Amino acid sequence: MNDSTALHTDRYELTMVDAAIEDGTAYRDAVFETFARRLPGARRYGIVAGTGRLVESITRFRFRDEELSWLADAGVVRPATIDWLADYRFSGSVWGYREGEVYFPGSPVLVVESSFAEGVVLETLALSVLNYDSAVANAATRMVTAAGGRPLAEMGSRRAHEGAAVAAARAAYIAGFGATSNLEAGRTWGIPTMGTAAHAFTLLHDSEEDAFRAQVATLGAGTTLLVDTYDIPTAIETAVRVAGPELGAVRLDSGDLPTLVVEVREQLDRLGAHGTRITVTNDLDEYAIAGLSGSPVDSYGVGTSLVTGSGAPAAGMVYKLVAHRNDDGDWVSVAKASVDKVSLGGRKRAYRRFGSHGHATAEVVRTSAVAAARDDERELLSPLLIGGEPVEGVMGPEGVSAARSHRERSTAELPLDAFRLTRGEPALPTVYE
Amino acid sequence: MNDSTALHTDRYELTMVDAAIEDGTAYRDAVFETFARRLPGARRYGIVAGTGRLVESITRFRFRDEELSWLADAGVVRPATIDWLADYRFSGSVWGYREGEVYFPGSPVLVVESSFAEGVVLETLALSVLNYDSAVANAATRMVTAAGGRPLAEMGSRRAHEGAAVAAARAAYIAGFGATSNLEAGRTWGIPTMGTAAHAFTLLHDSEEDAFRAQVATLGAGTTLLVDTYDIPTAIETAVRVAGPELGAVRLDSGDLPTLVVEVREQLDRLGAHGTRITVTNDLDEYAIAGLSGSPVDSYGVGTSLVTGSGAPAAGMVYKLVAHRNDDGDWVSVAKASVDKVSLGGRKRAYRRFGSHGHATAEVVRTSAVAAARDDERELLSPLLIGGEPVEGVMGPEGVSAARSHRERSTAELPLDAFRLTRGEPALPTVYE
Repeated sequence: MNDSTALHTDRYELTMVDAAIEDGTAYRDAVFETFARRLPGARRYGIVAGTGRLVESITRFRFRDEELSWLADAGVVRPATIDWLADYRFSGSVWGYREGEVYFPGSPVLVVESSFAEGVVLETLALSVLNYDSAVANAATRMVTAAGGRPLAEMGSRRAHEGAAVAAARAAYIAGFGATSNLEAGRTWGIPTMGTAAHAFTLLHDSEEDAFRAQVATLGAGTTLLVDTYDIPTAIETAVRVAGPELGAVRLDSGDLPTLVVEVREQLDRLGAHGTRITVTNDLDEYAIAGLSGSPVDSYGVGTSLVTGSGAPAAGMVYKLVAHRNDDGDWVSVAKASVDKVSLGGRKRAYRRFGSHGHATAEVVRTSAVAAARDDERELLSPLLIGGEPVEGVMGPEGVSAARSHRERSTAELPLDAFRLTRGEPALPTVYE
Repeated sequence: MNDSTALHTDRYELTMVDAAIEDGTAYRDAVFETFARRLPGARRYGIVAGTGRLVESITRFRFRDEELSWLADAGVVRPATIDWLADYRFSGSVWGYREGEVYFPGSPVLVVESSFAEGVVLETLALSVLNYDSAVANAATRMVTAAGGRPLAEMGSRRAHEGAAVAAARAAYIAGFGATSNLEAGRTWGIPTMGTAAHAFTLLHDSEEDAFRAQVATLGAGTTLLVDTYDIPTAIETAVRVAGPELGAVRLDSGDLPTLVVEVREQLDRLGAHGTRITVTNDLDEYAIAGLSGSPVDSYGVGTSLVTGSGAPAAGMVYKLVAHRNDDGDWVSVAKASVDKVSLGGRKRAYRRFGSHGHATAEVVRTSAVAAARDDERELLSPLLIGGEPVEGVMGPEGVSAARSHRERSTAELPLDAFRLTRGEPALPTVYE
């Protein structure tokens, strides 16, 4: 039952198809675009994530007998539309910003070219995937900046829907995190997994020393021991005594971290455990991480704030019809006219423009039908599905790995003030030509 | 592959089992409890949601060959533990607050009794389900209060991970919403679905009138026409002309709603469409809904703020070992000692106490081994799984329906100041006896 993604869809997508089949407009050629009107949280840039998941989800967008019979029984659409849905295979083409790419307000991060009906039914699914995954990536990339090269692990599964948790681990990894606690993310997306023990393990044992001995016996001296169940100095003394100075790391999950980590480092050094690392995991966000930059922390584990987008839990992207053919075969650019939700009609091309110093200077969006990249520009849209067929290298662990590399290259192009954590304007202006 | 929930688990749950199998503590009888330390957003009460989903997920917590071979290849646990996982069936018992029940800080919303190993591996899954679903229910119940009896529809699927979207629709329905746009939620949980058309449908057509005619031809005059694609007064005139005064509803998705809906109501009445309802869907949250209480709005559609918990996207519940037997067979109460994360050890019972006026006055949590409800108390923990077997009526659409009824009864017991939208203390004190 979970193999089909077809019912991850708002009812109105299908009722629109129903009415458009009746009057024939369902088959008009159409272009839909996905973009964000603004960057939530007044951030300086965003990171596109979810693209590879979306492409794979589109290949599973199929109405099988169980979906069709439910739709018919529920009276969602008429029998003629049930027949059309039964044959549904997305046969159009999708272009998009590469996964891991930097984006700004107005960036056309996804462009869908198909009949109206084929494209409109993908709206809910496309936005679900891109809005959640990009929200996490947008938070994660700031945490990576704040950590200044120290490794970060994603461990927020328990603070997100269980399916979202897997997507969050994936998006965080793309944005530069090094590992996840989530085993399904490890299996599905090839992301390194991490984790050793919780307070429960210490509490289960008759003494902290028993717990540490049991953990070291099974996981080795290189393991990470959690040292804040009872008294921290006592736990550290016990930890080094049990594991030896080759103890891998100690983990702190509570307390006033800036002060605490200094004391813990001093104690570890006094005990000869100079190589033992300190990892902290206490309700961190990008600001707390930045606040620890001068402290002897070796790595961070981040949970709640990461999987909930650190104050911006949805990226706020929309999926809009921007052009269609009329009955004469002419393309018509369209856009809603309401004052507070302005959209720009017509198929767009997008480019990142670079200055003489080598850094990006503008996000250029062209509505002209013919538009090539200038010498000082990089083209941003690449094919994701052509004639319904996924492009190679986008899906699966391969796509995740490529996206992670691309995010690193793409952020390296940005001017330095893009990496400020304060609220502000987008780091690049979006220029319409 | 999606049939098993077993890898929706943090790696450290399995490494703890690995080490505990090695030293024998894995098989100690244990009690785990789930509770919230506080109500995020300084809200007055919370609503437990996700329980039915969790019970069903526990029945699918199975390590099959594909999970086991991945765990073995990834070196997560030793071969002896792989064997133990292969046989894993939760055989313990789970009690919990009924789904839809009101909860407060410290309420033991879930109590798991099993061996340490059987119970600890459920931590991540249990928290994922309860933290997300309850976050949505916590936001939804406030919106229901703010709407003061006017119907609410959930339409936030596009602003949540696609799997989370289904859970959000379910949680919102339990908390009193009347319908969802999400088709999968309709199929899986029996929730009424709604929705007619988006701006794209109007933009696809050569004129707004063409679009309205097509929609009415297929969906009937009782449909809801979206009237803010171009000029609203023109659209309303067209809508009533096309559908007649029996037009079901008009939808507004932009603009200054308090002013706008008055104008729209007046125009509809002038056109004789007295029965045509007005539904609004423009970035609403509980405060915007409350602000419209004096306006002639007939129903609300709520998206982003609902599925992201309206500022509190995770309920913040934790899953803690509170007691275990030692090798002598004696029960030992346990709790972490850190200053900022105090927990109370020992198995708890929970009761809601009522005053002479009939309203609830306290949340009573007793740690005594023998504890029955007093005459002025209602017992809050009921069985969810006994000896690994789900209790009847908890899962599926049946469970959702029961939870929705229970939420209504449970909130009706609260004192009136529980329903204030302002930040504040919990409406009931949690009393430990």
